[in-house]
Amino acid sequence: MIKAGIIGATGYAGGELVRLLLGHKNVEIKWYGSRSYIDKKYADVYQNMFQIVEDTCLDDNMEALADQVDVIFTATPQGFCASMVNEEILSKAKIIDLSADFRIKDVKTYEKWYKIQHKSPQFLGEAVYGLCEINREQVKKARLVANPGCYTTCSILTCYPLVKEGIIDPDTLIIDAKSGTSGAGRGAKIDNLFCEVNENMKAYGVASHRHTPEIEEQLGYAAGKELVLNFTPHLVPMNRGILATAYASLAKDVDYDTVKAVYDKYYEKEKFVRVLEKDQYPQTKWVEGSNYVDINFKIDPRTKRIIMMGAIDNLVKGAAGQAVQNMNLMFGEEETEGLNLVPMFP
Amino acid sequence: MIKAGIIGATGYAGGELVRLLLGHKNVEIKWYGSRSYIDKKYADVYQNMFQIVEDTCLDDNMEALADQVDVIFTATPQGFCASMVNEEILSKAKIIDLSADFRIKDVKTYEKWYKIQHKSPQFLGEAVYGLCEINREQVKKARLVANPGCYTTCSILTCYPLVKEGIIDPDTLIIDAKSGTSGAGRGAKIDNLFCEVNENMKAYGVASHRHTPEIEEQLGYAAGKELVLNFTPHLVPMNRGILATAYASLAKDVDYDTVKAVYDKYYEKEKFVRVLEKDQYPQTKWVEGSNYVDINFKIDPRTKRIIMMGAIDNLVKGAAGQAVQNMNLMFGEEETEGLNLVPMFP
Amino acid sequence: MIKAGIIGATGYAGGELVRLLLGHKNVEIKWYGSRSYIDKKYADVYQNMFQIVEDTCLDDNMEALADQVDVIFTATPQGFCASMVNEEILSKAKIIDLSADFRIKDVKTYEKWYKIQHKSPQFLGEAVYGLCEINREQVKKARLVANPGCYTTCSILTCYPLVKEGIIDPDTLIIDAKSGTSGAGRGAKIDNLFCEVNENMKAYGVASHRHTPEIEEQLGYAAGKELVLNFTPHLVPMNRGILATAYASLAKDVDYDTVKAVYDKYYEKEKFVRVLEKDQYPQTKWVEGSNYVDINFKIDPRTKRIIMMGAIDNLVKGAAGQAVQNMNLMFGEEETEGLNLVPMFP
Amino acid sequence: MIKAGIIGATGYAGGELVRLLLGHKNVEIKWYGSRSYIDKKYADVYQNMFQIVEDTCLDDNMEALADQVDVIFTATPQGFCASMVNEEILSKAKIIDLSADFRIKDVKTYEKWYKIQHKSPQFLGEAVYGLCEINREQVKKARLVANPGCYTTCSILTCYPLVKEGIIDPDTLIIDAKSGTSGAGRGAKIDNLFCEVNENMKAYGVASHRHTPEIEEQLGYAAGKELVLNFTPHLVPMNRGILATAYASLAKDVDYDTVKAVYDKYYEKEKFVRVLEKDQYPQTKWVEGSNYVDINFKIDPRTKRIIMMGAIDNLVKGAAGQAVQNMNLMFGEEETEGLNLVPMFP
Repeated sequence: MIKAGIIGATGYAGGELVRLLLGHKNVEIKWYGSRSYIDKKYADVYQNMFQIVEDTCLDDNMEALADQVDVIFTATPQGFCASMVNEEILSKAKIIDLSADFRIKDVKTYEKWYKIQHKSPQFLGEAVYGLCEINREQVKKARLVANPGCYTTCSILTCYPLVKEGIIDPDTLIIDAKSGTSGAGRGAKIDNLFCEVNENMKAYGVASHRHTPEIEEQLGYAAGKELVLNFTPHLVPMNRGILATAYASLAKDVDYDTVKAVYDKYYEKEKFVRVLEKDQYPQTKWVEGSNYVDINFKIDPRTKRIIMMGAIDNLVKGAAGQAVQNMNLMFGEEETEGLNLVPMFP
Repeated sequence: MIKAGIIGATGYAGGELVRLLLGHKNVEIKWYGSRSYIDKKYADVYQNMFQIVEDTCLDDNMEALADQVDVIFTATPQGFCASMVNEEILSKAKIIDLSADFRIKDVKTYEKWYKIQHKSPQFLGEAVYGLCEINREQVKKARLVANPGCYTTCSILTCYPLVKEGIIDPDTLIIDAKSGTSGAGRGAKIDNLFCEVNENMKAYGVASHRHTPEIEEQLGYAAGKELVLNFTPHLVPMNRGILATAYASLAKDVDYDTVKAVYDKYYEKEKFVRVLEKDQYPQTKWVEGSNYVDINFKIDPRTKRIIMMGAIDNLVKGAAGQAVQNMNLMFGEEETEGLNLVPMFP
Repeated sequence: MIKAGIIGATGYAGGELVRLLLGHKNVEIKWYGSRSYIDKKYADVYQNMFQIVEDTCLDDNMEALADQVDVIFTATPQGFCASMVNEEILSKAKIIDLSADFRIKDVKTYEKWYKIQHKSPQFLGEAVYGLCEINREQVKKARLVANPGCYTTCSILTCYPLVKEGIIDPDTLIIDAKSGTSGAGRGAKIDNLFCEVNENMKAYGVASHRHTPEIEEQLGYAAGKELVLNFTPHLVPMNRGILATAYASLAKDVDYDTVKAVYDKYYEKEKFVRVLEKDQYPQTKWVEGSNYVDINFKIDPRTKRIIMMGAIDNLVKGAAGQAVQNMNLMFGEEETEGLNLVPMFP
Repeated sequence: MIKAGIIGATGYAGGELVRLLLGHKNVEIKWYGSRSYIDKKYADVYQNMFQIVEDTCLDDNMEALADQVDVIFTATPQGFCASMVNEEILSKAKIIDLSADFRIKDVKTYEKWYKIQHKSPQFLGEAVYGLCEINREQVKKARLVANPGCYTTCSILTCYPLVKEGIIDPDTLIIDAKSGTSGAGRGAKIDNLFCEVNENMKAYGVASHRHTPEIEEQLGYAAGKELVLNFTPHLVPMNRGILATAYASLAKDVDYDTVKAVYDKYYEKEKFVRVLEKDQYPQTKWVEGSNYVDINFKIDPRTKRIIMMGAIDNLVKGAAGQAVQNMNLMFGEEETEGLNLVPMFP
């Protein structure tokens, strides 16, 4: 039995992590950390957990937690994990950080986009970027995993094979992404009120969203060179789901079968990546509640561009599900354990 | 391994049944019946099932099906099951009928409210009304189970203990119910288009909805006498969920603790019925995707009435989940097998 | 030109008032009061007003305001208007109070349900309850109008004729009401976040909602005696709209035509009340954006009850529209001026 | 008084046209044409019109209609208007065609993208593309106006000034557009059911949507050369609203002020085009129910691209509102008459 602790268990990603871990046969949650709700019953914060979780919320003392568990999940604001982690903690427990603290290798890039000082740059080298389909072997050996962002997971997996194989010109990449509102978190803000979001749609963080350098870094590794791209997130009136529509100029004269073969080369054996059949475009509802990424593409011979599309549930593959997948790899569990979730429709 | 066949596998209830049975460790689905989509891949109808279900849709030949499976689920329009079932089929396979054909014992009542002739009244006596929490022992022995309606499941379980124990005057019962739109089915009708339902709310079937006699019959058994009541369904702009708000005059001068004790008497040991803590009223989102019924009540000393509230996921406890629960009882499985679903929030 | 000032112009009701007054040919808004946004451009708070409203938000100094305008609208929290109003202000400007301060004649009832002390009970006698269809003549002469609540407007107008004419037994009245989320206001609360409201439904304020005594008082006048009733509000995932479903036992043996004639007696000449055709039940979408109340009923001969249904846009007839209607009456304008709004569908 | 006839009055665009024309002081609707609902009361099809419109639906006989009205609006499927129009009709009544029949000058392009034969190519030369802000003077003199598509209106107005002034390289244009579901029409299709659209998002018509050549033709005029671009529409779970996010490489080294000045040059005097303040990005809710187009942009110095964003209400500026604006121009009315609609929020 893997003993798990969660810091930030009452955010939406934290809540989803609880839901998934409760369905994992070899995990026991020992610590529901929530600075905002200390001493309150967890099921009073998330009433869906009534009679399922009897625990009370605890604080975010990572040192105490490391003594009691095998794995610590931090579903916390940027800066928290970096400010707490140290060698002693890492010697006792593995950490899966759902924040951005260890996703970006270059501390200056991190500090520029996040506008905070990084408190533990010494662990940046060790931290593994936990996109399982790409870094599976490194994740298995990691003590500290940086769980990728929601937009980035969807964007990277959608474009990765075509960048890696040189099918597209990476300097032409434009990613237009759309997200359900749970991605904005559970903070009480006017902008996220029902009446402000419902029957509405907008772009935000245009040319400045923090997931941009993360996507650039990872796709840069695939391209074998640094790259810059456009990434524009949009807020959509739905709870869950991210859809990424990516555009790039073709670097070669390719047809459907060639591109399909490239995607298959990377994903055919991947349980959680489904390259759809021709002309079936991803829909967020088809992956809701599950760890799947649905991907497809369309070549436009008129403009010599390719349109790549990917869909995930932002709270599962974009956060908690991927965290569990990483945990499974780190602890030698079956990679899919706890994640055999059939998407819920409608 | 229980071999299961579904007739009507491409409606919303049928699709949910597939989702749940795929998570049941002792069931194998052998037959995806769908008159509308014969020979089409099931995953082409429900793309969430891509790479999960490889089967093709078959017809609705119940006789052929009975030779191949242990249990037949009929998620079909009213009249279908009654027109097909016969002794030979029942001798080979158990049937769980998600339609209304065998829910109402009095054939005249059925024919009056449903406006069709009943083709197999000879099985009405044998059929067991599959509300597990109330008829558990009979379900275990049944060959033919009438799976309750969605509104009725929610309404009956919400009121049952107080009717049974004479806390309320059953002749004063008024049930005001609200349902998500999946209850209206997957038929292509203008009334169910997104733009007609979204940002809208209405009552329908006022004083004439077919679930009325079903609720009356079952609560009549509890009351020990015939009763008539008001039941008004409403359509709500959400996919899933039923909320029933029931009103009745108190037959006795009771306080919170007395009423709570009555609910606990019936439900304390029931896994799927959660009587909430004082002043926590049910919310449909807290049970979404799960087999739970959340219930609570409030006494109004000013009017000497009690307000009872219940919430379910109409596709789970209101249809497919309850069908699986019935199947588990009929086949000696753990009652909760395949139903340990944590509600998804948000 | 009527000069108008609004205190509380940045709440949802205040914003709707601005929208409606901008379309009124004889009104000029001179004061956009908003304690939260003083000195901020109004159009920066409500960007739909960009290039339409150039004004900046002012404070809530009612004395200063009274010197500059003919009418003051207070779309403010309970207690504000009562704490500010005085004889001098009323001698200079008429007041239409959208809060509850002057709706309830009995100060003890007000203080019991609202749990605050009433600061100006001396004006309770003078204040007119501004339900135009019922108190039209008094409104015309009023200096101080208590604009009715959203739930109450819908509930009272739906039941009024049948109570007044003794068709129903008022002691059996049960009102089950459903509201869009704009009724909860623009405050930043977790409960009103998109992800908490969307795909969800719940009752709240059960047997304790503050609109209860207001409905009881007004229907009590119609009945000619005091009455208590049950009123249960529910939160629905839509922006606008209230649907009230009311139940009562018939006091007489009546048929459809008789009841229809009673409704027509009161509403046939009312522009804003539409009694629908037989078996057409109100839908909130059919009145969205307009000042209409859509009403219908269904007799249930089985239970000898009648089900009455009414729908309004909570921000228009339930708040700002009714306030404008009151203003028109108070200032001798055409009652419908500024309110000839065709409902928007879809 | 302008006498108006509508063919296709019961589609969503037709219904919106009725709503707007009812608010126009110099228009009288004489003909509510609807092949599907002949002889049915219009208000029985759109119950929001109860007691507002008393007319009954008529057929689509354009010749008979031309004898009775001054202007004919055709809100009909592609091919209808082209199959009916002739010189005699045009000599009696002006036509504003909301379908695509006369939008594209090159008949081969039309037939290739729409896959139907054009029945009246002889009128293509005469027809004026009714994007008022760009073709105002020609519209004033036109007998036959091709009312632009919803996506195209939003896309063209968003990009036009920068293409026209050579600020961007038009060959790099990529338009990622998102639309509410009313754009899909009122046909009874499974894909447009509430449960299929709600909590879901998808791209469709990728690299093949029919609005593509229309955008290309119009922006080609602005660029002074033929161009091809990528246009990808997406379906969003909301009733109304289109958001277009457009990407292009800068052709010059420009800063914010330069680009703002270019937009202002074209739109400063345009009532219905609002170029927002710096860093305020368009939201569909801010224009809902109105004829506004909200536009803004962001320069990304990292990628040397510019992101242009535009929002409209697809049924107003994207259809019925623009049709009324065209009518006003054609009949010498004030251009804004009937269109002084304040956006409704929330």
